[in-house]
Amino acid sequence: MRVVLIGAGNVAHHLGSVIIRNGHRVIQVYNRTQSSAKKLSSILSCDFTTKVPEIDRTGELYIIALKDDAISEFIKSLTFSPKLIVHTSGSCSIDVFPKELNGGVLYPLQTFSKANKRTPSVIPFCIEARDRKSLSVIRKFSRSLSDMVYEKTSEEREKIHLCAVIVNNFTNHLFTLSEKILSSEQTAFDILRPLIMETALKVQDGKPSMMQTGPARRGDSKIIKEHLALLNKYPGIKKIYKTISDSIASEYDVKL
Amino acid sequence: MRVVLIGAGNVAHHLGSVIIRNGHRVIQVYNRTQSSAKKLSSILSCDFTTKVPEIDRTGELYIIALKDDAISEFIKSLTFSPKLIVHTSGSCSIDVFPKELNGGVLYPLQTFSKANKRTPSVIPFCIEARDRKSLSVIRKFSRSLSDMVYEKTSEEREKIHLCAVIVNNFTNHLFTLSEKILSSEQTAFDILRPLIMETALKVQDGKPSMMQTGPARRGDSKIIKEHLALLNKYPGIKKIYKTISDSIASEYDVKL
Repeated sequence: MRVVLIGAGNVAHHLGSVIIRNGHRVIQVYNRTQSSAKKLSSILSCDFTTKVPEIDRTGELYIIALKDDAISEFIKSLTFSPKLIVHTSGSCSIDVFPKELNGGVLYPLQTFSKANKRTPSVIPFCIEARDRKSLSVIRKFSRSLSDMVYEKTSEEREKIHLCAVIVNNFTNHLFTLSEKILSSEQTAFDILRPLIMETALKVQDGKPSMMQTGPARRGDSKIIKEHLALLNKYPGIKKIYKTISDSIASEYDVKL
Repeated sequence: MRVVLIGAGNVAHHLGSVIIRNGHRVIQVYNRTQSSAKKLSSILSCDFTTKVPEIDRTGELYIIALKDDAISEFIKSLTFSPKLIVHTSGSCSIDVFPKELNGGVLYPLQTFSKANKRTPSVIPFCIEARDRKSLSVIRKFSRSLSDMVYEKTSEEREKIHLCAVIVNNFTNHLFTLSEKILSSEQTAFDILRPLIMETALKVQDGKPSMMQTGPARRGDSKIIKEHLALLNKYPGIKKIYKTISDSIASEYDVKL
């Protein structure tokens, strides 16, 4: 397909690479800031523009990869009706598109960051459209990029996005807090990496609810008390430790 | 080395396999329950016993892989002084061994579970001993099993164990809560697996503090409010969502 990319951030970057790698063409990158538009367009070997009226009108699919609060503004600024236009947000409703536009959603359920150049090898997509024909185009396109394509409503997608925040952002913060505790006693974060890897690997074929271990799971109040005492100088971490331990105990009907 | 394994649970199981795979011999398994002692001894092709006085006295290394609260009791029941005896607990001090015993620690910083037959490919070890000679034996032995061997005091090990609880047990609980939210709307947990994998991969070569993304990191109160509203029927998850979001915001000096 002939694709126009709106945006030049992390999502546009990684998605753009996946798109051309799977035999499609990105014909143009639009971005307000020239430097990043130029940079991405050179990577994808295509044109770029920083002006909405100059966006190429011959595209078959326009992909908005902008921050949530910029999506609506961009749509309002459009000076023509694209054949098919989708956004890539987990939390933005399909209703951000006015009815007269042929709008849809192509949400990549993955984490993309500047700090990490490697594009994830598997990207699940949640897709949505208003009519069967558009849905079929988005479905075919996303299936050409990934084996994991899910048709989800905006309400369902919002819950999935919430879960993505929990398993990605919150998990990474727990890693960060551990990094902090370790560095206070000159232990490198390295020591935890194999355990982190294994924790993720274990739920690749199993259910996490079947994998739960640890002091809260087995009701080991003695260890929990000792850990809370170690955390006295980290009140924020202490609160998280207590809140999650209580949640584990209540989930498995364990008394602490 | 000629090793005697005390215990026949998950740790004994996985450690036993790693030990024989690296050219050592497990000469005997001791466990109070006959069925599990027999099962592990048949896997490791060695003897087993359920009686402390019948423990083989010709071992060069005795590895206690019992639950924390069973370690002390087992040591008291010993009817001879082993050449070298270590426990595998993250939180139990080396002082659980009386001074007259040649005791030490060999703590595998990994997660082993019945639900998961595969032994983790990398196992960091925290080791400890009272004298240079014992430490050197434990160091040589653990290095034959793993490239990641760390000499740590009991106090340091306790903090490392606390971090292991945070990055493994707590993370797995976050996965479980997401599984719960998704199943309430008939979405399979599958959809989150690539993101979980990527989250772990990203911190294999990077620092988690450099990888943080998400609504709390960027101060997106609108999304956080929407997520909290979605969680009204899950008060426990809502509390965790709020606690961790507040911690992220405070870590990066973001106002929510």
